[in-house]
Amino acid sequence: MTEPKSDALIVFTPSGRRGRFALGTPVLQAARALGVDIDSVCGGRAICGRCQVTVSEGEFAKHAIVSRASHITPATRGEEHYAEKRALKPGRRLSCQALIEGDVVVDVPSESQVHKQVVRKRPDTRPIAMDPASRLYYVEVDEPDMHHPSSDLERLYRALETQWQVTGVTTDLAIMQTLQKALRQGEWKVTVAIHHRLATGGKRVTAIWPGFHDRAYGLAVDIGSTTIAAHLTNLSTGEVTASAGLMNPQIRFGEDLMSRVSYVMMNPGGDREMTAVVREAINTLAHEVADEAGIEISDILEVVAVGNPIMHHLFLGIDPTELGGAPFALATGLAVTRPAREFDLEVNPGAYVYLLPCIAGHVGADAAGMVLSESPHLSDDIMLLVDVGTNAEIILGNRDRLLACSSPTGPAFEGAQISCGQRAAPGAIDRVRIDAQTLEPRFKVIGCDLWSDEPGFEEAIAQSGVTGICGSGIIEAIAEMYLAGIVNQDGQVDGAMGKVSPRVRPHQRTFSYVLRDGEPLISVTQNDVRAIQLAKAALYAGARLLMDRLGVTSVDKIRLAGAFGSHIDVKYAMVLGLIPDCRLDRVHSAGNAAGTGARIALVNMAARDEIEQVVRRIEKVETAVEPKFQQHFVEAMAFPHKTATFPELAKTVRLPAAKSVETATADGGERRRRRRG
Amino acid sequence: MTEPKSDALIVFTPSGRRGRFALGTPVLQAARALGVDIDSVCGGRAICGRCQVTVSEGEFAKHAIVSRASHITPATRGEEHYAEKRALKPGRRLSCQALIEGDVVVDVPSESQVHKQVVRKRPDTRPIAMDPASRLYYVEVDEPDMHHPSSDLERLYRALETQWQVTGVTTDLAIMQTLQKALRQGEWKVTVAIHHRLATGGKRVTAIWPGFHDRAYGLAVDIGSTTIAAHLTNLSTGEVTASAGLMNPQIRFGEDLMSRVSYVMMNPGGDREMTAVVREAINTLAHEVADEAGIEISDILEVVAVGNPIMHHLFLGIDPTELGGAPFALATGLAVTRPAREFDLEVNPGAYVYLLPCIAGHVGADAAGMVLSESPHLSDDIMLLVDVGTNAEIILGNRDRLLACSSPTGPAFEGAQISCGQRAAPGAIDRVRIDAQTLEPRFKVIGCDLWSDEPGFEEAIAQSGVTGICGSGIIEAIAEMYLAGIVNQDGQVDGAMGKVSPRVRPHQRTFSYVLRDGEPLISVTQNDVRAIQLAKAALYAGARLLMDRLGVTSVDKIRLAGAFGSHIDVKYAMVLGLIPDCRLDRVHSAGNAAGTGARIALVNMAARDEIEQVVRRIEKVETAVEPKFQQHFVEAMAFPHKTATFPELAKTVRLPAAKSVETATADGGERRRRRRG
Repeated sequence: MTEPKSDALIVFTPSGRRGRFALGTPVLQAARALGVDIDSVCGGRAICGRCQVTVSEGEFAKHAIVSRASHITPATRGEEHYAEKRALKPGRRLSCQALIEGDVVVDVPSESQVHKQVVRKRPDTRPIAMDPASRLYYVEVDEPDMHHPSSDLERLYRALETQWQVTGVTTDLAIMQTLQKALRQGEWKVTVAIHHRLATGGKRVTAIWPGFHDRAYGLAVDIGSTTIAAHLTNLSTGEVTASAGLMNPQIRFGEDLMSRVSYVMMNPGGDREMTAVVREAINTLAHEVADEAGIEISDILEVVAVGNPIMHHLFLGIDPTELGGAPFALATGLAVTRPAREFDLEVNPGAYVYLLPCIAGHVGADAAGMVLSESPHLSDDIMLLVDVGTNAEIILGNRDRLLACSSPTGPAFEGAQISCGQRAAPGAIDRVRIDAQTLEPRFKVIGCDLWSDEPGFEEAIAQSGVTGICGSGIIEAIAEMYLAGIVNQDGQVDGAMGKVSPRVRPHQRTFSYVLRDGEPLISVTQNDVRAIQLAKAALYAGARLLMDRLGVTSVDKIRLAGAFGSHIDVKYAMVLGLIPDCRLDRVHSAGNAAGTGARIALVNMAARDEIEQVVRRIEKVETAVEPKFQQHFVEAMAFPHKTATFPELAKTVRLPAAKSVETATADGGERRRRRRG
Repeated sequence: MTEPKSDALIVFTPSGRRGRFALGTPVLQAARALGVDIDSVCGGRAICGRCQVTVSEGEFAKHAIVSRASHITPATRGEEHYAEKRALKPGRRLSCQALIEGDVVVDVPSESQVHKQVVRKRPDTRPIAMDPASRLYYVEVDEPDMHHPSSDLERLYRALETQWQVTGVTTDLAIMQTLQKALRQGEWKVTVAIHHRLATGGKRVTAIWPGFHDRAYGLAVDIGSTTIAAHLTNLSTGEVTASAGLMNPQIRFGEDLMSRVSYVMMNPGGDREMTAVVREAINTLAHEVADEAGIEISDILEVVAVGNPIMHHLFLGIDPTELGGAPFALATGLAVTRPAREFDLEVNPGAYVYLLPCIAGHVGADAAGMVLSESPHLSDDIMLLVDVGTNAEIILGNRDRLLACSSPTGPAFEGAQISCGQRAAPGAIDRVRIDAQTLEPRFKVIGCDLWSDEPGFEEAIAQSGVTGICGSGIIEAIAEMYLAGIVNQDGQVDGAMGKVSPRVRPHQRTFSYVLRDGEPLISVTQNDVRAIQLAKAALYAGARLLMDRLGVTSVDKIRLAGAFGSHIDVKYAMVLGLIPDCRLDRVHSAGNAAGTGARIALVNMAARDEIEQVVRRIEKVETAVEPKFQQHFVEAMAFPHKTATFPELAKTVRLPAAKSVETATADGGERRRRRRG
């Protein structure tokens, strides 16, 4: 007879960590001892169900892994109770309940890991690793004992230390005020939230609930000058549970950023009004997403916000006037970690707000969010990130060096300063094609899936009508006009084309092209073309300036972010020369990269350190004081000659015949030289 | 010819630190390099005048130190300007302006040291070392530069680092909001306050002023259940600049602590009312002392508060109901460091509140303040600290071991539950003497320096009248009655003495002693004696209980703290047996020790760590669950037999003839045995 073994080998997959433990050791305890990442809120009491694993016995020989129940204790009453109430997938065990009885292989599914990875939709982006700053801990606190007097808070700390090995914790005043009731209501069992990353490095109890509580959420907020968007994110799974957006109510103080700064300059205290309304708007969104997700507003433990420098300052309650003129000095560009109550946010009273750092006076926390999302600092390739708004924020570089600037594109890309321009809204033309032979257009409007020449189009748009052209629509319209020869390389609307089609008509001593006759008449005027030329030249010149600084003549990858960047067809952006030369298959929309960056910082503590460090080493370039910017700007006014530089482009869009007999090369410098001539 | 020397020796007194420095080195810089403690707010710009020193040349031979101006540069224009404006004492130099030209001896007067020691009035107490948590720094910040964009806050941090070597600083939102204006108003010169001891260990910019600012104050607040006192303290000199006190407005919710707890129990939300009024009262005091000192309320950068557990909880906004009954659990007894704005205090918006830790459910932050002030934890002698109120807080021990308990003395010592009792206020009898032969009394009343048998007394008290007896008055009255034989050792008023004097009269089946005939009639009744017996027995029993625990039968030193402790004549306390046996010259009043403790914690950071550590190791004893407490209590009801145990007492007070023929010894155990018999 062999001596019965007193311990057994346990192997965790996928980590491969292994060790021997005394028989009767809970699997969760073994996992912790080996540093295997298994989540738990209830601390081993079969309540939370976060610690689920799949158990196999093991001889550890190939094919030998078959289920032998004897190597693990059967389900406990607590586990059965959990399975009845919350449903446990077949084969799953709660690792806190399953005790080791013999050699076993235990698989930790990704959803049971604290630091699970959340895969993003775009395949070219890195996954988001979960590592939230706020975590929940369920504890059983000792009752007061007159023979050993100690305060409720001290007993809570002791429970956190013995049950969770969490030490060095401090506590908000609000928690001290509610602690007694929570402990007694929960019969000395409470769940606390601990914030692990204060600016000063401490840990703090920020929320408390009687009994077991397993809802911890965060709000990622993107404060745009036009719209504010909020994404309610589950801090355990990383999932976005609900999203909502609304118009930035500051619009009533001024349509664009500069008019809001002017409002403050003309109306002392105007900044405080704008601070109040933006915070109210975030509260509205918080309630909206909480309602949609069916959670309490107090389940929101973190808010991470991004925005351009003026939005950033107004959210913080800082007068943005200094940002309205040279030297464009930020009051602070550093990341901010402050209690949400200081922002009057109606989330959990102990919640914290984290604001991403700003990069420079015109390159805000939204640009930092874009960097976090697109990660040029981790890339070997040279990446160009562009977020186009009234200003274009431009980031260029790779893991070795990063540069940033802002370029004054003006509002043309957003449809402003365009004769028939409008915001992207139902009724706005956003897609345009022009027949190069007949010069007849066809187009699509937002809110309708049909092209204008398809049957049923007029009925489909009867309600909205066709009201104007949005930013992406004007880009396509002008690019197609250029490709059809209606506009030449210098940006002139060619009146001679009026002989081909009556859609080219005289208009205020120049010519315009009519997309749609009727009421209203929708046309693209010479002035519209000029406005887009100015905007795209500014954008291009900013990118060129950074390329000069970095010493490169081309970039490997381009990401277009923001609403405009997400809507435009990158082909047309290249036709008009908004962005430098790049292989078309390497130019992508990054969607709402700023918001994604906020979401990453929301669920991953280390990402906050990361972006703060990256922003510190980004070299800030101020276009206003760079003489070369003007030079690039002037040179970039004309539309590029495309046939040779973009052979792959020729396959997807119809290019006009080259008007120049010079031999085109792939060299951007060469191209510039031609343009200057 | 000898080569001219390129460096020189500098010796600082009283520290004795010395070193060689290149000629032309500022004395202040040499001091810093050598770790010599010299204060400076302006950072070497001849503005603040904090760095004053006295310079002598030095051959360093005995008697050779004579003033030779050539060894130090003459006064600079900045120094002369300072001397004109602020007056510089003869022989004094600003060490930041004086450059080393040859060997010198430099004396640093105590007022130029950051860590100067403030001597306290009582010679038996340790001096207060200055080391405030909040300090001022004057900095010159770079202007924004478009060629090197950076935010105002980052440039401020850089200035703190290069000009003060202060790093790792964070900033309050309120500072971010005011930074721009302060920098521009001060033409890029500002003074900031930095708080060096947050609970999480960080440093934080808490206030900012344009230009040079040299006022930094703190408020030490003693929140008593009857009165609230505030002491405005200069954080540079340690001086108390102004003090003020007022009635605790919570009195309208209940005279004593228990009735306030009852109010909360009967009136949900009543705690919030009481929290609001105590905070308002502190605001009133803050404004009052600021006005008196001629400073701005925003110059108050710190508030340190002490109070009993119920006052502590109500100030924090915590419902005190749990403290009203067993198990008397504190919500929190830990020290609290939180922004003053969370307490609605109208001091500097960036100011912090520090609350000393509580020791136990009945032994509060005021007792912790008493410990800090009297420092039994640094004493070799066994010290007994007593703060008498409705409860007596008792601390016993020395550097090796400390014990604490609270004893339910009831309000008799404060004049309540005494037939003619009243608060210590004008008109109250506070001193009593009784002629042992005639039994005629004489007394003093508060607000009048004359004894009642001195000429002019009646005229002097005409306005206030004689309205009652305060706590210290009742102690003296009963002790004198005992010494005169009107009261026997068991506390019985001896009706037979009515034959000696008509002042001993029948009263409700027992007898009373009339101190003053008239309207109102002021007398001490049998019930009054019983009330004092109960109170003093509780006090004595608490002390005995701790002595038992500590294993001692006598104590080396006694400190009586608080209003009552400060007013009573310790001789009479010993006559009645309020406190255990101790040499009379080693029994002292400690004055408002709790308030002094708050003042120490206010000006010395290390004292906060110290008291937090000491409180952690104080052993808490709950009298309610200690059977021996009851036994001690019963035994302590009688008045002690004094002749033998206190020979030195016999010289200062007239003792009655011993009624017992037993031989008395100096042994307290012996005394107890006698009493039991």
